Amino acid sequence: MEEITSAQNPRIRRIAQLQSKSRLRKEEGCFITEGVRIFQDTPAAFLRAVYVTKERMEELRETVLRKSQEAGAPVYIIPQSLMNRISDTQTPQGVLCEVQMPAWHREDLLQAEKPLILMLENIQDPGNLGTMVRTAEAAGAAGLILSPDCTDLFGAKSVRATMSAIFRVPVLTGADLQEEIPALQKAGVHIYAACLNDQAQLYDNINYPENGGCAFLIGNEGSGLKEETIRAADQSVYLPMEGQIESLNAAVAASILLYEAARQKRHGVIIRG
Amino acid sequence: MEEITSAQNPRIRRIAQLQSKSRLRKEEGCFITEGVRIFQDTPAAFLRAVYVTKERMEELRETVLRKSQEAGAPVYIIPQSLMNRISDTQTPQGVLCEVQMPAWHREDLLQAEKPLILMLENIQDPGNLGTMVRTAEAAGAAGLILSPDCTDLFGAKSVRATMSAIFRVPVLTGADLQEEIPALQKAGVHIYAACLNDQAQLYDNINYPENGGCAFLIGNEGSGLKEETIRAADQSVYLPMEGQIESLNAAVAASILLYEAARQKRHGVIIRG
Repeated sequence: MEEITSAQNPRIRRIAQLQSKSRLRKEEGCFITEGVRIFQDTPAAFLRAVYVTKERMEELRETVLRKSQEAGAPVYIIPQSLMNRISDTQTPQGVLCEVQMPAWHREDLLQAEKPLILMLENIQDPGNLGTMVRTAEAAGAAGLILSPDCTDLFGAKSVRATMSAIFRVPVLTGADLQEEIPALQKAGVHIYAACLNDQAQLYDNINYPENGGCAFLIGNEGSGLKEETIRAADQSVYLPMEGQIESLNAAVAASILLYEAARQKRHGVIIRG
Repeated sequence: MEEITSAQNPRIRRIAQLQSKSRLRKEEGCFITEGVRIFQDTPAAFLRAVYVTKERMEELRETVLRKSQEAGAPVYIIPQSLMNRISDTQTPQGVLCEVQMPAWHREDLLQAEKPLILMLENIQDPGNLGTMVRTAEAAGAAGLILSPDCTDLFGAKSVRATMSAIFRVPVLTGADLQEEIPALQKAGVHIYAACLNDQAQLYDNINYPENGGCAFLIGNEGSGLKEETIRAADQSVYLPMEGQIESLNAAVAASILLYEAARQKRHGVIIRG
């Protein structure tokens, strides 16, 4: 346990850089988590360093010592003023960790029987992205596949929005969808592109469990999926919208689709005759 | 048409105050919209003033003149620097309006046959709140009812997240849920509280269209619904969650419930025997 008091300390400067630089996070294979709950949810194996205020340390002493020991990770006590400086939140909770990025492979997503998968293209809102990881876990999805032009999942806002699901749900980042789509199809997974085109079918008129798995493709918040991505999918699906609404929030659309597939799986398929 | 160039101009200072002060918006019964799309979607009757940059005016001249004339609303040409100062966004689109708040009544929500209603308690995230208004319109809901402790729907972030649905979907703000719940029940609407308690039923095992309407109660992002609110409802419902997820994002939960009720209405009720 070491105390750091200077903002010029190289460790503090490094944390500030990891907060702001996606490329540095990628190079170092690590990211920053903030808050008590995600600290408790972090598997010890992922922990690289713990930064904690004196006040919070008193309260969390037992957990901090146990986890850091298990991980072989150093603990740094820092004053609230330094915590405020390196935190991404307006009201820092007094514990911030450097954490290793989980490494997932396509096989991790294909282990489940009839896997449910979410594929995302060019999602730009970190809150949406993190929320989709959280919802995917809740819906029992096998994992997510993200195109390289998605916003960084390991940025502070997305990590926060996952509510710790980032440690539990397999996510392939920077994936070439034109490679992943045929690979999933080969494994028996049927790919549904969420978009409003002439061929699109009503989302709740489809028998999802009849195939050897099911993947939903969701595109950019403003412009939707790329044409070539839609073409690579097996089928287009749409969510009906009343009033003058032209699209749904990307995380909302993903949630409705995932929960409909999960509902059918749970209830047996029941669609309109 | 008048040109404003000084940041000290009282109109500019007023707009800046309307952006930041929820109480002032309420007192004056107006709010601020930003962007081309929502300007086009604003019914002329609601328009009180238009602030537009020279560049954007050239492009939108016809619409701006037609709408402002129809509304009897003044148009102010302002430089980009002033627009940046009064805008809530990082990349202002060059058109910002002062707009009258729509005034809705309970009766507006009860006109539809078997209305679908979303009731929100203590929702704090403006993005979640606006997204729920957007999704409610898409799901064909009759409207929303918001408790007084919800974040202000007429703040910049919530307004933006509604994607113009704020002008089309009836929303009762600052509503006393302990009054509204029995009033809806009297009108035949069945009230479902989204929460995880022992009495809660699986959300997709309920026959929503069998009653004279259906309202979903969604609570605060962290703490859920108040006990007294749950007791006032007819029934509790829950969304199944796999993995270690303990709750869903509030807007996600609302969307899944609204779309399930809408699905049943569209398909006829089909639930597990």
